[in-house]
This record gives sequence, structure tokens and C-alpha cells, in this order.
Amino acid sequence: MDPEEFRRHAHRLADWIADYLANSSKYPVLAEITPGTIASALPVEAPTHAESFESMLADFEKILLPGITHWNHPGFFAYFAITGSGPGVLAEFLSAALNVQAMLWRTSPAATELEEVTLSWLRKLLGLPSTFDGVIYDTASISTLHALAAARERAVPSVRSLGLAGRAALPRPRVYCSDQTHSSIEKAVILLGLGQQSLRKIPSDAEFRMRTDALASAIAEDRSEGWRPLAVVATVGTTSSTSVDPVAQIADICRRESLWLHIDAAYAGVAAMVPGYEWILDGAATADSLVVNPHKWMFTPFDLSVLYCRHMDLIRAAFALTPEYLKTVEPAPVRNLMDTGIQLGRRFRALKLWMVMRHFGTDGIRARIAEHMRLARLFASWVDASTEFERVAPVPFSVVCFRARTWLPPSGGRAIDADTLNERILEAVNSTGEIFISHTRLNGCYTLRLAIGNLHTTETHVRRAWELLQEQMSTVRREG
Amino acid sequence: MDPEEFRRHAHRLADWIADYLANSSKYPVLAEITPGTIASALPVEAPTHAESFESMLADFEKILLPGITHWNHPGFFAYFAITGSGPGVLAEFLSAALNVQAMLWRTSPAATELEEVTLSWLRKLLGLPSTFDGVIYDTASISTLHALAAARERAVPSVRSLGLAGRAALPRPRVYCSDQTHSSIEKAVILLGLGQQSLRKIPSDAEFRMRTDALASAIAEDRSEGWRPLAVVATVGTTSSTSVDPVAQIADICRRESLWLHIDAAYAGVAAMVPGYEWILDGAATADSLVVNPHKWMFTPFDLSVLYCRHMDLIRAAFALTPEYLKTVEPAPVRNLMDTGIQLGRRFRALKLWMVMRHFGTDGIRARIAEHMRLARLFASWVDASTEFERVAPVPFSVVCFRARTWLPPSGGRAIDADTLNERILEAVNSTGEIFISHTRLNGCYTLRLAIGNLHTTETHVRRAWELLQEQMSTVRREG
Repeated sequence: MDPEEFRRHAHRLADWIADYLANSSKYPVLAEITPGTIASALPVEAPTHAESFESMLADFEKILLPGITHWNHPGFFAYFAITGSGPGVLAEFLSAALNVQAMLWRTSPAATELEEVTLSWLRKLLGLPSTFDGVIYDTASISTLHALAAARERAVPSVRSLGLAGRAALPRPRVYCSDQTHSSIEKAVILLGLGQQSLRKIPSDAEFRMRTDALASAIAEDRSEGWRPLAVVATVGTTSSTSVDPVAQIADICRRESLWLHIDAAYAGVAAMVPGYEWILDGAATADSLVVNPHKWMFTPFDLSVLYCRHMDLIRAAFALTPEYLKTVEPAPVRNLMDTGIQLGRRFRALKLWMVMRHFGTDGIRARIAEHMRLARLFASWVDASTEFERVAPVPFSVVCFRARTWLPPSGGRAIDADTLNERILEAVNSTGEIFISHTRLNGCYTLRLAIGNLHTTETHVRRAWELLQEQMSTVRREG
Repeated sequence: MDPEEFRRHAHRLADWIADYLANSSKYPVLAEITPGTIASALPVEAPTHAESFESMLADFEKILLPGITHWNHPGFFAYFAITGSGPGVLAEFLSAALNVQAMLWRTSPAATELEEVTLSWLRKLLGLPSTFDGVIYDTASISTLHALAAARERAVPSVRSLGLAGRAALPRPRVYCSDQTHSSIEKAVILLGLGQQSLRKIPSDAEFRMRTDALASAIAEDRSEGWRPLAVVATVGTTSSTSVDPVAQIADICRRESLWLHIDAAYAGVAAMVPGYEWILDGAATADSLVVNPHKWMFTPFDLSVLYCRHMDLIRAAFALTPEYLKTVEPAPVRNLMDTGIQLGRRFRALKLWMVMRHFGTDGIRARIAEHMRLARLFASWVDASTEFERVAPVPFSVVCFRARTWLPPSGGRAIDADTLNERILEAVNSTGEIFISHTRLNGCYTLRLAIGNLHTTETHVRRAWELLQEQMSTVRREG
């Protein structure tokens, strides 16, 4: 594709995307196709001859677009709602065109240094001290993996060279998290060779926060039984209910017990920059590492996860490994990003973070996060005022956990099971195409979750979600 | 940024990028700044108020662009030269705008099914049987990590639940690769808790291919000493010299010894689709896994690495873990991509692979890969005909390893050390801004590497590289 062809197609695509962004609410938010529809509509072999960009864009619209679940839709309330904001999307376009590999400083000084600068900006906004150094990874799964690898590096002598197997003298390791912690922690301990058994899930309290008394006694019990405690993962904004673990108390225990403290603030960490919410990171200053994902609630297109760590030297000790073909000589010490991770290649992700932060300004980011939290509290107030629904968890941020109450049929028949009722409501509202909500289980009960995080979501959309939920509840009641 | 603002900036950026791509040869290929230049030119805090897109683009040009090493430059001959082709860049723009998370089928059916279709297309092109299932990851480091995690899952009972530590009965594991294998293999065994010690590097022959006699005797020796062999990593296109390990013979050994065979074909695998080069994957049909990176030599913007595996069930067994909030009910069985890996979140990467394959057509891709190999052979012929330079390795693909010969000064003084001579030549040609080559070490000697892989690179650029090398050689000779 020569530059003039590229120019023509890029302009065409710019218009298509601008139209799409203007009309994202007109698509069904959740794709309505059945499994296999797309695969069966596409050729079974790659084309032999070149095809036109026009034909690809036409096929994209005809075949692929009906199979897109629209994360840009203002009615997207599932999981954690996200936004690929305009400046972020444009930065990704530019980054793809530059196609630099930021493995070494030399292979892209701008990517390396902009990462340092933007992560320093973000660190200050979160109120973290300068003892934290930052690095960008793709996902929180990978950030947390590196944090726990560093904890393993610190706790297990020679693990880099000797590994874990066949070392009779090595005690069984233990990592602690709450029963509300994200599945990525469990995947990380599996990958690191610690085993699922090494993850001890501490019970949480009535508001889904890790019980520190239970943590302290679990550690004591494990030590007495010959386990080797390595690390604690505290969560600021759990996935189910967005609860906040008592970080400061957990940090005290970690200090006393010499354990690595990793904070999973992937979703909610950014809220710490909103006045009145600084408390959520109380105690984080003495943590060893913290992950926060601008691609979750800071309007940055997926993927961009940030790991802050007070011992980046340990991550380097775990992973730095420079073969001859990657050795460089620079006039001054430089940071080679390949040394801080398992992935050699790195995209120029800092560019989008830079453009997003400049486009909104810190006041603009704060205002939007605060507005999402206001909308969540508003929705929660409707739930609280309703006789048909009930709230199942506090609403510290922008997610509301609630469920429909079941009722005794007037005829005296059997009451519909509450879990079934809520499952049916979920399916019914999601099949309208107007909203997409997801669910979780809290205290063993099937629970609906409404997550606000998209910049296009306004009070009107939240109100419409509430109307739809009430309508579907009535339908289920009527139809029994 | 409202859609109309977005439209305006996107058009402006489309023009900027089209101009950039048209002029990529006018920039110095290797960034000429000194460390710290960019960081010190940027504010130390994020802006409080919103800034205009124009001001960002202006700062990008003024501050960041001088710190970009231009991977798009036709004179980029370092590492593995790559191309973010037009259709690939446009696909990334579209993918960023859609901002879908392909963790579950339901969260983006199109991303999930297009991944299946495009990987099936590519698999057939590579000549791999349908017993291989494919999955897209970000980098070969992550693909290989998953392959070795699956090997560990198969070989070590209950590793997922029990881990590796504190199990006295567990023998020490062993993974084999050649002394030419990429550093990502070593990083993977470290991360997996196997330890560097578990990686046994088998010597290679005069053409840098793994010696299978040495492999067989290493395995026998290890077994007799109580090690537990797990896997062999064979490379098709090593990073230093692009040598090809004897895959078929290694596959025989692996079958006999019941070892997992992983093939690292990240760079050169795509050459298997060029007539006459099918042999490079001889024996691969019985391998357990193979990685190939379309972002390396198939004109796809970074990042897109493909892992083909004959036991995707083992990767799922190692990693599948579905918390309640990610449970879905579909009308038919679906593939949830989060089950095949450590990363929960996944970008819509298949889109760019689809657009690249359709834009070029398979004939077009084959022709371009073949042309890069022709250019490399041409350059090698100049080296071979020269009295001042010598070739250090065969040229199976698009990389030439060579070095300047040293000489005895006519005055009878001390000869310049060959390594120093080549280092000086490397620095000299790279500082011209016209080309960027990198180096390696082969047989202990500092070796220059010229890698061809950019679509904009023509015979003229390769000829110019040769001229520059000769010129700088003369300068060094003259100046002593």
C-alpha cells in the first residue's frame, strides 16, 4: 500500500470510525449472533491474490460488525466498563504507524523516556511516593505476575538459577489474598510453579474486605506448620463488589512478618486522585508493588497496565538477561525496558497515556471519575428505595451490586427461586440490545452488577437501565 | 473529544502518518539524541487543564520524534527488520476504536472467531496439519512461555495444584535447547520455577545448528543422573545467524524420549510458505507446539505472535479458571480465549492479520519474503567477493552475518584487533543515520548482522549499506 493509497484509505477509515463513535448507541450492545456465524461466513483459505481495502471494509461491516460486542456503547455496564477515548485511539493509530519496539532504550528512546515521564505523572496523581518506580505491561495479569515473581525472587534464595523443584530443603510457599481476589492471582501462582495450594484465601467481612485477624492467624498457623509465607495481595476495588481491603492494616502485618505486599488496584486505583478518595491507598506507600490499569477507568484504549514497584531491582534480578545481539553501548546509563520483564518486545504504549492525560487534564480525569461514582450512587439510591430490588454490597466506586427480591405468589404456589429470577432478568435485559450487565455471586447468591465506566454513559442511560430492569422484573412476575 | 473533533483530528493525523510513511527514509534511522533528552524536555507533572490535540501533535513532532528510532526506515537492518504495513496500521486504528476485550466469546464473538479463521489460514500456508490449534499472544516470549508451561503440566503430575516446591520426590527438570537459542527460552524457564540450571544448552555444529548426537547423549546422561527431561526447543531461524535446527531428527528423539517438542520459528517460520522452503518445517508435524510471529516477517504491526499447539487442552488444563463473574451461558459450545493463557484481557489482534493477508494475498506475501531472501543472497555475494570482508555464517533466509577482516599494517606495526575493528565499523555506519545494523557473536567473534525485512527496503538500499560499510572500512584503515 503506497503512501497515497494509505492516505485515501486512512481518511475513509477516519470517517467510518468517527461515524461509528457518534452512533455507538445505535448498535445492540451485546452481539446478537450465534456461535459459529462469523467463522462460517468467511473463506476457509486465505486469498491467493491481493484484495482491495474497500472489499475488506465492506466485509468488516457485513460479516464482523454484527459479531462485535460494543464496549463503546453507553449501555455497556458489564464487567468493568471502559472507554477507548478519542485521544487514546488516535495515539494508538500513531503508535501502530511508528511500529517501534521499545525493548532497548536505543530501539526507541522516546518510548522509553515517555514511559518514565507519564508514569511519574500518574504516580504523583495517585499519591504514591517517589520510591516507587513504574513500568508498563499489557495487562494486570502480567503486572501481578511480575510482582509475585519479584516476591519469589526475594524469598527463595537462588530461585532464578536453581528453580523450585527437587530442593528438599525448600519449604512450601504461601501467598495470601482474600476470597474476593481476582483470578489472575491464582493464575500467577500456578505459572510461577508455586501451585494453587500455595494460595490461601482469607475470608472477607460482611462488606467483602479481607479480615486482617484471619490473615494474621493464617500466617501464624502456616508458619507453625512449616509453610513459608511469601506475599500478601490486597485489593483496592475487588472485581465482584469493588470492596477495598484494609491496606494499612495489611501493610502492618506484612512489615511485621517480612512479607511482600502487592496491591491490586487495577480498576479502582485511579479513584485515589479524586478529592475525598485518597484514603483508598492509605498504607500503600509501604507496599512493595501496586498495579493500576489506565485501560480500565482512565479512558485509555486497551492494553495498558502499570506496575509500580519499590524494588524494580528485584524484577530486574529475576529477569534481566542480555544476549550478545542485544548489547548496546550508550553515552550514559539508560533504562532498557526488556530488563523489567518476561516480554522482550514492547509496543509504544506510553504515547496513549500521554495523550489521554493531556487531552483531559488531571481536573478533567478527576471530574469524569467522580461523575461515574455519582451515577453509581444515584442508581444505588433507586435500588435502595425500591421494594422489588435490594442492594447486596456497598458502593465505594462506580459499580452497584444488587438483586431482585423474590415474592410469594398470591395464589399460594411456590416462590420462584431468587437465583433463577435474577438469571432470567439478566438474560432479559441483555437481550434488549440496549444494555449489557453482568453478574457475580456474593454470599453465595446470584447477584446483578451494574458497572459504570464509559465516557458516553450519562444519567439518561443509567435511568434507562433501571427502567429496563423494572420492566423485565414486571414481565417475569406477570408470566411467573 | 466529540465525534466531530475526533473526525477532524483523525484526518489531520491520517495526513501526518501518510506523509511520514512517504518520507521515512529522510529521518536518521537510529535516533541521534542522548539519554535523558526527552525526559528533561517534558513537564514533571501532568497538566491540570485540558490541552489541545494540536499542541500534543506539535510536541510529538518537536520533542518525541527526534527520539524515535525509525523501524519504518528502509535502511533499518538491525535485529529482525519488520514492517507495519498500511493495511496492518489501519486495522490497528480500527481495533483501537472498537476497543473490544476478547476474553470471552461473548465479549467479542468477531475477535474470537476471526482469530480461529485467520490462524487456520496461516496454518495451511505453513503446511502444518489440522491437529494444530492456534492462539494469538502478544510476543514470542509469551507464546513460548505457554508452550513450556504445557510441557511442565504434562510432565509434572499435579503441578497446577501442588506447584514444584517442597516436593521431595520430584526430580529436577531439564529443558534442552541449542547454544544459539533465543533468550526468551531462558526467561521462560526462570519464570516457570524450573530455574536456569534446568536449561541445558546443546552445542551447535559449524553452521550453528543443534547437534542431535549431543542432544541424545545429554538426555541419556541426565536421565542416568536423575534429572527429569521435559522438553526440547528447536529453532527455525536462530536470532544470531538464522540457522535451522534439524527439526526432523530432533522430533525423532523427542518421540523416542517422550519429550515435548517446541519449535521457535518466530522469525523464519513464515518462509515455509515460499516454494522451495517447505523443508524448514520438516518434522514439525509431530512437534507439540510451534511459535511464529507475523509481526516479524509478515508485515503485521507489532504485536502479534501465534502459538500453534497439538495439545491446546493441556494449555487449558494449565490455565483455565473461570470465576463466577466470567461465567456465561451460550447456545452452543464456544471458545473463550481467556482459557488459553495467563492474560485475561486480549486485544482484537486477528483483525490486522486478516487485513494483511487479504491486502497482499498469499502470492504477494510469498513474493515479498522471497525478494528479501534474494536481497540477502545478493549482499552475501558482495561480501564473498570482497577481500576486506568475510561471511561468518550461511544465509538461509534474509540475514547476513559477516565481518571485516583485519590486516597487517604495511609499516609493520600491530594489527588492529578484529573485534575492535568491527565494533568501530558498526558505530561508524550507524552514526551516518542512513542505516542501522546490529551485531552478534559467532564462534566467539564480534559479527556484523544485516537483516532485511522491511517492505520499503529495495536493492538500492542494500547496495547503499554495502557502500557505507566499505567506505567506513576504508576510513578506519586510513586512520589506523
